[in-house]
Amino acid sequence: MQDFVWPVRVYYEDTDSGGVVYYANYLKFMERARSEWLRQQGFSQEAMAQELGLRFVVRHAHIDYRRPARLDDVLHIHTRTLDRRRVSLTFEHRILHSTDNALLCTGLVQIACINAATFRPTPLPPSFMETADGA
Amino acid sequence: MQDFVWPVRVYYEDTDSGGVVYYANYLKFMERARSEWLRQQGFSQEAMAQELGLRFVVRHAHIDYRRPARLDDVLHIHTRTLDRRRVSLTFEHRILHSTDNALLCTGLVQIACINAATFRPTPLPPSFMETADGA
Amino acid sequence: MQDFVWPVRVYYEDTDSGGVVYYANYLKFMERARSEWLRQQGFSQEAMAQELGLRFVVRHAHIDYRRPARLDDVLHIHTRTLDRRRVSLTFEHRILHSTDNALLCTGLVQIACINAATFRPTPLPPSFMETADGA
Amino acid sequence: MQDFVWPVRVYYEDTDSGGVVYYANYLKFMERARSEWLRQQGFSQEAMAQELGLRFVVRHAHIDYRRPARLDDVLHIHTRTLDRRRVSLTFEHRILHSTDNALLCTGLVQIACINAATFRPTPLPPSFMETADGA
Repeated sequence: MQDFVWPVRVYYEDTDSGGVVYYANYLKFMERARSEWLRQQGFSQEAMAQELGLRFVVRHAHIDYRRPARLDDVLHIHTRTLDRRRVSLTFEHRILHSTDNALLCTGLVQIACINAATFRPTPLPPSFMETADGA
Repeated sequence: MQDFVWPVRVYYEDTDSGGVVYYANYLKFMERARSEWLRQQGFSQEAMAQELGLRFVVRHAHIDYRRPARLDDVLHIHTRTLDRRRVSLTFEHRILHSTDNALLCTGLVQIACINAATFRPTPLPPSFMETADGA
Repeated sequence: MQDFVWPVRVYYEDTDSGGVVYYANYLKFMERARSEWLRQQGFSQEAMAQELGLRFVVRHAHIDYRRPARLDDVLHIHTRTLDRRRVSLTFEHRILHSTDNALLCTGLVQIACINAATFRPTPLPPSFMETADGA
Repeated sequence: MQDFVWPVRVYYEDTDSGGVVYYANYLKFMERARSEWLRQQGFSQEAMAQELGLRFVVRHAHIDYRRPARLDDVLHIHTRTLDRRRVSLTFEHRILHSTDNALLCTGLVQIACINAATFRPTPLPPSFMETADGA
């Protein structure tokens, strides 16, 4: 099975005065890739919020920073699910530089499904479990 | 009458790889100063949203960038209201460097009061008009 | 002559607790579009910084916010140059919703070319003026 | 020995359309607290970069998200060092809500000292090791 890969271009907004991508911004890139992975599965977070009153929140994030990314770089965010439970899902993200495939950053991110009003854990929607089954 | 002045420290998150504060981030600084100006008037935006279903949105922003701010700088965000109408309010922000008072950036920002559900313009709350009267 | 159009997807990072895109983030979208417009002209800002010691900075930004954008929306950033001078360039950005072409936000943004070390205005590189000539 | 505590106010820029602070932004809050901890020790990151050509970069971040923070909340970022080595330093951050001391988020963040030009690990400056000795 192939990884889902989402490309991200680095703009000025992503960098800091050290000349590289600011460390918190890799979490934005990972969340973009998770959103696109969901969309590829036919899953809209906006619809999930509006129609079901459900939302994903991050419970844990474990990030390793190996090499810096710079302005104008194109990064490939490799994304796959490692562990699926009734109310949570763990993603593994690996961020590679597009030109030499150097591994820049890895992330393990556990997300949980919650009721958007109460913020209590809620089982993932059945439609999600079905579509995502083979991923 | 004295300006309201809110200090802001520049952190890595605010800078870009050009070595200076990223241009969009001055709008964050201005919004922090507006929020604190409102708070000083006894006004909570969270309460306004929760209790009255009202929210402020920005209609226009006119920003002049004169000199760059850098990591570790402390900026003074001078803030005053220029024009008050039934549904809108215009703020003038002047961002000065704290050590030499150099003028780094100015902003004219018009905000409007809206119904948070419909996004339609709505008169500013009377309590706001009263407290803010002398400002 | 056709506008240059750059698509931008709205993610959680772009929104705020009012349920819409945070006002400063439209400036990020506009800068992404300017960067891609430059790239399309064969122009790399990273190379310009590394090889020529030049950088673009924003001098003025005039933004009108008309309608809000929301999570998952795809926006089209229409971008063209209005005024070219020896050391500055003015862009007009119009942000349209991709599904109904509603105009959400417009921006006039003047950028200047500076020496990255001294921050003094410097003529735009001749190669830039040539490639960009017909735009 | 007492924790170093840095207060952070939550503004619109920090929140997302889920109505809470966006998960990447807690890393900004932690970095603000580390910067202020360094400053309290008499240590300027800007001087360290300009004079010594050294910079801190994050190597690992392990974040647990327990409860959401919201607009207008004041958070207390408790910060202490856990492990000091020749080229790296590990911080423990605990983010508490200011009104009820509820634990919202914890972070273990390892930073390394690098040569800003080569990005290679470099021993922490001796002046840093001395001033920080008792912390």
